[in-house]
Amino acid sequence: MEAKTPAASRTTMTDLVLPSETNALQNLFGGELLARMDRAASIAAGRHSRRITVTASVNHVAFNLAIPLGSVVTVEAAVSRAYNTSMEVYIDVWIEDRYNGKRTKANEAIYTFVAVDETGTPTEVPELTPETPLEITRFEGALRRKQLSLVLAGKMTPDNATELKALFTKQDAK
Amino acid sequence: MEAKTPAASRTTMTDLVLPSETNALQNLFGGELLARMDRAASIAAGRHSRRITVTASVNHVAFNLAIPLGSVVTVEAAVSRAYNTSMEVYIDVWIEDRYNGKRTKANEAIYTFVAVDETGTPTEVPELTPETPLEITRFEGALRRKQLSLVLAGKMTPDNATELKALFTKQDAK
Amino acid sequence: MEAKTPAASRTTMTDLVLPSETNALQNLFGGELLARMDRAASIAAGRHSRRITVTASVNHVAFNLAIPLGSVVTVEAAVSRAYNTSMEVYIDVWIEDRYNGKRTKANEAIYTFVAVDETGTPTEVPELTPETPLEITRFEGALRRKQLSLVLAGKMTPDNATELKALFTKQDAK
Amino acid sequence: MEAKTPAASRTTMTDLVLPSETNALQNLFGGELLARMDRAASIAAGRHSRRITVTASVNHVAFNLAIPLGSVVTVEAAVSRAYNTSMEVYIDVWIEDRYNGKRTKANEAIYTFVAVDETGTPTEVPELTPETPLEITRFEGALRRKQLSLVLAGKMTPDNATELKALFTKQDAK
Amino acid sequence: MEAKTPAASRTTMTDLVLPSETNALQNLFGGELLARMDRAASIAAGRHSRRITVTASVNHVAFNLAIPLGSVVTVEAAVSRAYNTSMEVYIDVWIEDRYNGKRTKANEAIYTFVAVDETGTPTEVPELTPETPLEITRFEGALRRKQLSLVLAGKMTPDNATELKALFTKQDAK
Amino acid sequence: MEAKTPAASRTTMTDLVLPSETNALQNLFGGELLARMDRAASIAAGRHSRRITVTASVNHVAFNLAIPLGSVVTVEAAVSRAYNTSMEVYIDVWIEDRYNGKRTKANEAIYTFVAVDETGTPTEVPELTPETPLEITRFEGALRRKQLSLVLAGKMTPDNATELKALFTKQDAK
Repeated sequence: MEAKTPAASRTTMTDLVLPSETNALQNLFGGELLARMDRAASIAAGRHSRRITVTASVNHVAFNLAIPLGSVVTVEAAVSRAYNTSMEVYIDVWIEDRYNGKRTKANEAIYTFVAVDETGTPTEVPELTPETPLEITRFEGALRRKQLSLVLAGKMTPDNATELKALFTKQDAK
Repeated sequence: MEAKTPAASRTTMTDLVLPSETNALQNLFGGELLARMDRAASIAAGRHSRRITVTASVNHVAFNLAIPLGSVVTVEAAVSRAYNTSMEVYIDVWIEDRYNGKRTKANEAIYTFVAVDETGTPTEVPELTPETPLEITRFEGALRRKQLSLVLAGKMTPDNATELKALFTKQDAK
Repeated sequence: MEAKTPAASRTTMTDLVLPSETNALQNLFGGELLARMDRAASIAAGRHSRRITVTASVNHVAFNLAIPLGSVVTVEAAVSRAYNTSMEVYIDVWIEDRYNGKRTKANEAIYTFVAVDETGTPTEVPELTPETPLEITRFEGALRRKQLSLVLAGKMTPDNATELKALFTKQDAK
Repeated sequence: MEAKTPAASRTTMTDLVLPSETNALQNLFGGELLARMDRAASIAAGRHSRRITVTASVNHVAFNLAIPLGSVVTVEAAVSRAYNTSMEVYIDVWIEDRYNGKRTKANEAIYTFVAVDETGTPTEVPELTPETPLEITRFEGALRRKQLSLVLAGKMTPDNATELKALFTKQDAK
Repeated sequence: MEAKTPAASRTTMTDLVLPSETNALQNLFGGELLARMDRAASIAAGRHSRRITVTASVNHVAFNLAIPLGSVVTVEAAVSRAYNTSMEVYIDVWIEDRYNGKRTKANEAIYTFVAVDETGTPTEVPELTPETPLEITRFEGALRRKQLSLVLAGKMTPDNATELKALFTKQDAK
Repeated sequence: MEAKTPAASRTTMTDLVLPSETNALQNLFGGELLARMDRAASIAAGRHSRRITVTASVNHVAFNLAIPLGSVVTVEAAVSRAYNTSMEVYIDVWIEDRYNGKRTKANEAIYTFVAVDETGTPTEVPELTPETPLEITRFEGALRRKQLSLVLAGKMTPDNATELKALFTKQDAK
């Protein structure tokens, strides 16, 4: 299988915040945003693997910005690192002011997907070759995030999480 | 404000997996489960604080189990620790076999909510007093998880994350 | 088949009232509440029978209380009497004040379900053994309600509805 | 206020059964049909009263016929009797065979609505003048049904339910 | 196959405008109205052909009237002309004032459907025999509209569109 | 107001075809695609005008390609010509093969939007300056399409539709 770039899986989902997705303050429910990001990220993982993909995990997500009813929300997802049968997908969420058009970063999130065949069995996926500096940074951070997942799930001892230890010496980690 | 127990906020949301929530393998979308957990957890946070609550963050969530169309899914949420204006909510997800009734743990997740007034300004919430051994374990783990959130968000240096360091010596951490 | 208790089928569905479910006064549509109760009751009937269950009938339902947008609504359903292939399910609906947490009884409803196999053919269900005084009262009232259903459907002559006649001498009937 | 006929409020809602409304047997959920009937009946009550209308109660409803995915379902609702501030609405549900066009009666249901002003206060509605023999039969049966509602709700003693007693001597009652 | 009249396929879909279908001005989204019209028209085409029907095209649609949240909207669809395997369906949309009951024409639209078998292959449909003057006018205009569709799709040269040329001499064309 | 380019309003909405949007052949309903295109186009019109925008009309749309459940559908919309208070938006729809990634053009559509203020009054919008050859072609065709709309709506006599007459001499018109 030929390696692919993040550009090959980049998925843009721009849509409105509809009344059925808002809470008592008329802002988008956090859970609805998580569901939209899941759909966009699963399309990106499908574009990389050309397989059915299922959500394996979601990394820590912070909601810093309320997103009001009627907002235009853009969810951009692209594969940031590929493993044997799984892919890390990096998601950026932007909102846009209706009147001056200013785009504001609302969220980042990282989902992991597994490629499966029609019986649900994991299948191999192409490698990922990052191109831009941001893609390279995200590619390199992925190993550390994977170790964190494994430690959090009790599937790796912290002693073996060599990359993760960098977390305690580098500030820009996510 | 009087302290409350986790029992006072415990919220049970049992519902079916409907056709509009399933993917190409006829299993529940990961994102739909995240949205349901958000609704249940926001009710739990509302029961603890008696305020409007907004999602502040979601911890790492792993999806280990496919949940097929027609399943009965139970989402149970309760506040696990309260801070000044925010609350950690611990969520357990169970699925149930239609024919033998066996309940299987499908997921755990941890969301953080902030209590706000009608203008969206954070407001104080009651303390939480854990009662059962499981509630106490979750209460004690919360500080470590909060430090991890702050480090991941770049708002705390790893050196100051004293509780988090326990992660590298204790196995049962989440 | 071993008899089961109401506790074995008790189903709790707590959820918010969402904007897409409200009428011109910003209150929950009666029809949406009927649909939620149907889902909760069908889960309870499934827990009792461990079969696919289909709605056979709904008894008289009164809507005494408007349920505003954003309310927390709890629907509790449990099998109240089992017949050969059908089950009566008793449903209690509670709403909760966001600010003081006071629970108010909003509705009661009684649905009947039939257990069927994959071809839709009715199949036998376990007996129900009521335990608490309330469960016993509801169990005993079920026969009278069944006769009322049969009379209303023209499938039983009023003369044979011996239990139903109690309706005209007892006040607490439903 | 001038009296109106049932024809003036007659409301026809023909629509498909969509995948998101079906259960494990691929048939329409009973609860979804109850919700559709509520919307159609509330439009009929609105046409009679020219007011906001809220569901007050639903009479006994039997589901005799499974309605499969893709069916064409017609819900017809018309006011069958008007009281001071409330209206009884009679609903007939038909399904239609896709291939031979045969219409089959699937359900009948009777909802009661109250007309309210913008503050939710009940307001007067016009009288109803039935025209056809079926409309006259339904109009005459309404009093008996109202007494049954009141007895079931514990708001009338069976002794005073003079019309209801006819239920035990007449077979065609509903 | 016996010819059918427009009355045989006439489909009435009356429903409310729900909050999840409205834009920032609290009016029905144009796209939601297009979707409702598609469902009503596909039922009409199914009633004429007794086949599965798929949307082939939509003619020019103008939205002259805002339709506010809570409105009662009636979509009436009937086959206006049948060809070999396709049908033109004419749709009229009415809205109704809640307080005085005045019906206003909100839209007209013309959709074309193809009848197909279970494999998606086009199959023959009955002829249409118009009865009323309006049905005859619509029947006669259909050929001209078909030529316009073909010219717009580049499948017919304008020179051969003899009926369409009438458009440039007759004012009432649509 | 400064003129804008089509690039400034270009909107990409990539999403899956969900089960609740499919017909009896498991393909996307034509009406659901019309609704998605409306949302994407209204975002594009909002990006050009920085105003609330309402759908004024939809040009002829042909559905040449069935879009099966689970497909990835990309709707791309951009303003193609701006008038005083209205904008023509050109929409391209692509579907993507899950296994080989091949993109196929599924539809083109043209919607017209009006920019309004909070009271619904039309307000001025910036001019559009096309850049690429395709954008220039679409810009130039817009006048002819506008005349066709006006003639179809009976608001312009065919004699005055000078641009439209080109339709009968040029083949590539839409």
